Amino acid sequence: MKQFINTKETLVTEAIDGTLRSAGTRLARLDGYPHIKVVVRTDWDKSKVALVSGGGSGHEPSHAGFVGQGMLTAAVCGDVFASPSVDAILAGILAVTGKAGCLLIVKNYTGDRLNFGLAAERARAFGHKVEMVIVDDDVALPDLPQARGVAGTLFVHKIAGALAERGADLEQVAQAARRVIDGVVSIGMSLDTCTVPGSPKEDRIEPGKAELGLGIHGEAGIEQVSFSGARDAMAMVIDKLAPRIGPGPHVALMNNLGGATPLEMAVLTEELARSRIGAQIRWVVGPAPMMTSLDMQGFSVSLYPMTEADEAALLAPVTPWAWPGCLPVDEVQVLPLPDGLTPIQLPPSQNAAMRSFLQGCCDVFIKAEAELNALDAKSGDGDTGSTLATAARALIDALDRLPLADHTQLYRAIGMELSQTMGGSSGVLLAIFFAAAGDASASGKDAVGALNAGLDRVRQVGGAQPGDRTMIDALLPALEVLRDGIEPAARAARAGAAQTAGITKARAGRASYVAESKLAGFNDPGAEAVALLFEHVAQEAKASA
Amino acid sequence: MKQFINTKETLVTEAIDGTLRSAGTRLARLDGYPHIKVVVRTDWDKSKVALVSGGGSGHEPSHAGFVGQGMLTAAVCGDVFASPSVDAILAGILAVTGKAGCLLIVKNYTGDRLNFGLAAERARAFGHKVEMVIVDDDVALPDLPQARGVAGTLFVHKIAGALAERGADLEQVAQAARRVIDGVVSIGMSLDTCTVPGSPKEDRIEPGKAELGLGIHGEAGIEQVSFSGARDAMAMVIDKLAPRIGPGPHVALMNNLGGATPLEMAVLTEELARSRIGAQIRWVVGPAPMMTSLDMQGFSVSLYPMTEADEAALLAPVTPWAWPGCLPVDEVQVLPLPDGLTPIQLPPSQNAAMRSFLQGCCDVFIKAEAELNALDAKSGDGDTGSTLATAARALIDALDRLPLADHTQLYRAIGMELSQTMGGSSGVLLAIFFAAAGDASASGKDAVGALNAGLDRVRQVGGAQPGDRTMIDALLPALEVLRDGIEPAARAARAGAAQTAGITKARAGRASYVAESKLAGFNDPGAEAVALLFEHVAQEAKASA
Repeated sequence: MKQFINTKETLVTEAIDGTLRSAGTRLARLDGYPHIKVVVRTDWDKSKVALVSGGGSGHEPSHAGFVGQGMLTAAVCGDVFASPSVDAILAGILAVTGKAGCLLIVKNYTGDRLNFGLAAERARAFGHKVEMVIVDDDVALPDLPQARGVAGTLFVHKIAGALAERGADLEQVAQAARRVIDGVVSIGMSLDTCTVPGSPKEDRIEPGKAELGLGIHGEAGIEQVSFSGARDAMAMVIDKLAPRIGPGPHVALMNNLGGATPLEMAVLTEELARSRIGAQIRWVVGPAPMMTSLDMQGFSVSLYPMTEADEAALLAPVTPWAWPGCLPVDEVQVLPLPDGLTPIQLPPSQNAAMRSFLQGCCDVFIKAEAELNALDAKSGDGDTGSTLATAARALIDALDRLPLADHTQLYRAIGMELSQTMGGSSGVLLAIFFAAAGDASASGKDAVGALNAGLDRVRQVGGAQPGDRTMIDALLPALEVLRDGIEPAARAARAGAAQTAGITKARAGRASYVAESKLAGFNDPGAEAVALLFEHVAQEAKASA
Repeated sequence: MKQFINTKETLVTEAIDGTLRSAGTRLARLDGYPHIKVVVRTDWDKSKVALVSGGGSGHEPSHAGFVGQGMLTAAVCGDVFASPSVDAILAGILAVTGKAGCLLIVKNYTGDRLNFGLAAERARAFGHKVEMVIVDDDVALPDLPQARGVAGTLFVHKIAGALAERGADLEQVAQAARRVIDGVVSIGMSLDTCTVPGSPKEDRIEPGKAELGLGIHGEAGIEQVSFSGARDAMAMVIDKLAPRIGPGPHVALMNNLGGATPLEMAVLTEELARSRIGAQIRWVVGPAPMMTSLDMQGFSVSLYPMTEADEAALLAPVTPWAWPGCLPVDEVQVLPLPDGLTPIQLPPSQNAAMRSFLQGCCDVFIKAEAELNALDAKSGDGDTGSTLATAARALIDALDRLPLADHTQLYRAIGMELSQTMGGSSGVLLAIFFAAAGDASASGKDAVGALNAGLDRVRQVGGAQPGDRTMIDALLPALEVLRDGIEPAARAARAGAAQTAGITKARAGRASYVAESKLAGFNDPGAEAVALLFEHVAQEAKASA
């Protein structure tokens, strides 16, 4: 049993109770478990025409999910794919029907017709006004006089539900339901069968094939067709539907049969809009699972000609969340990209000292390439040295373009250069470091303040803490004492880098996935790079002092 | 490729366009396909704090499905399970951010952190106020300092979204988001892996096993556990969550990871309510797919302590349909069964002539048992004779209980008897026939009128038309001429029954599934039974004349 159920026998009753619990006290059930499984509105006073539907379970959210203001008054649930009993249906009718009477909305399956039909007779014997409509929207078999009832049933629930809510009488509600049934056409397609709880899954659809013209009970489709993607699939569906609809505007109901992903359903919706009847599709309900067949990886399209009267009924708000609304379909609205994506080229400026300083720093990384790669090979893929050296070479090449005379802009420009030339996480983190330092500099911070602001941001975005065996372990202690001079900062960076050799349980970055024993005795390459950089700057300072 | 897509490369852009088409003009996208995939509100004037989220695709309806009033302002979509680029995120920020600033809501995955982080820096360089929060609600690995961000993110979207909509400033919105992140815990469980478009499906979960502690990118769960049903599954999930929550009331978010059926999700919701922390779960969001992992057959539970301030924010209405609402959880409300399910026993009454008439009619079917079975064997399972004979014997046994002196009540009583003793479709149809005849009689129709009313109802419920090779083919012509006398009615019934032998293409009932050649030359057993009945009554009438 690869399903989140307890037993096949208790599946439907437990699921109904779970549905009631999560319906915010809007729904109740009749006291007839396990035989009588009827979900009713708790806010119902019998003053209006009651709408009762139902059938086998396995089609969720149909039918209990559509019980509520503006749609069904009661749902009578059978076991999975099995019609409810006459007694259960009668209980549902009697529980919600007042003087205004009751409309039964039944999908065209023999068991449902007969059981709902007999329950209607028994309710009439009590003096109740009961009308019954039979939905037969499936066009899979054009010659069959008894077409099945599938997802088009939702249009009946919605339009009849809106009329009943508005206070229409039984005759008007039934008439509207029959008008919807006359107008609605549906067809389904699937790439796989469904998994019936307690039964082995049938594996009848070969790779490269799809079934067209499905019912909603796992029965085989009318034909197996070649499957070559969403566009062709929708074209085949349209070929079945197009001859059955008139020329005017239509509303489409995009039903997920259960196991199609939202991505697939969205692609299919796009294909419907782009199809040869796309211009006629002015409104859409979904895509959403509405009339499912357990976990079937398939969809169905239902079309209904939109009239002014139906528009108001289809748009009327309802309480059941499962109804996704009926929304106008339009061209995809495309807005122009905002300005600012092309980085502003800051005007270059000259500063010999800064140029020489940067060149020296870059040289540190170019020289240390092999050493840092070797350290990185202990915990990663051995490319930290190459990554830094490549970035350093690119920065040297960029020196002529940089605003060397303007500290604030220089931070930003270096950040931009690094974000464009350096791959991987470290490149992004360094870019963030310099961008944040530039912002801090712009807001008046001195160099030490700016560098600390950069570090803060890197810690926030990268999430690394001291002791996590990252470059932070060298950079943080160095910046903490940088106001005391570059010498103590360099010593602090070296001490921090050396400490990383003793951290065998990395908690951030790629080293966190590596066995502890492999790391012992080797500095983190990022921390080592920071230490080398500070040592270089300190040496230069000493030499020029 | 067993998916309703066109190509892996166009999947996300086509799906976004499909999503925009079905969003009722509420959403637009930026003009940056295929690289920049950003969905924005069309009703946005930048006067309030903008909320931007996003990440890899494959988590639908996250994130584009939650763009709209009261939730996100923009969603930045990467390819399936891949972080969007810095440029794409920056485009999203710049497109929606005004003076009030922007909050980035980022799930704790390295790629997202870095790319959103750098985009934030670049936006800040333009002078925008940008805050970023990182959601890390997954409790699968209690020791990991960098917990993943999963479905609990929805609480951040909703609560921060409500505050922003209300006009709170960036600091207040970011503070609320951080408070939610501090409080929310989540964990997921799955019975199967997900199908990544364009990649073969990994099959790593053995039968009888489940994975506990999943991310949302198809990565393996933290542990494989034995799976023995929904109750134990929920208990394991609760064991991980319970130690992480305080004693007060909580709101639960029941997230479908994509491939669990609504039935399964409802059972799991029921198990959550019944669990040892059930009393603390006072509100629920879902069950619904909110943060999915493609088609993964799994679920996650997120818990958040409910405070008064958050309650208002969680309950505030929003436009995105994908948000299922936050509803109070209560005991299952169970209403008493309505009266009338136990059939009213009509008081028996005597009428010797009627008794003898009914006895004679029943005898017809008892005598014809073998003959009718033989006819039925041509098209069905050969039991029409036995079914009718059994019903006839039961009716004879019931004669003492029947209201023989009251025509109207007698029809109804016979209908009730048949519905209780006769199995199968024909039993229900005959029960409907007599119940409808009783109603017609009660409303003043004579016997012929009542019988015709019964026939009308049977035709409506059963759906059979004349020529469909059913008992209608004998009954309809007989009742049409019954006012002229029983003799012509019997002749019409016989002629109608004889005609069925020439109908080789049955269009209703079980015979519709049988090859044409098998039926030729044999009367339909139902029509034959009707003819035998009318012939018997005619003979009796002649004998007594």
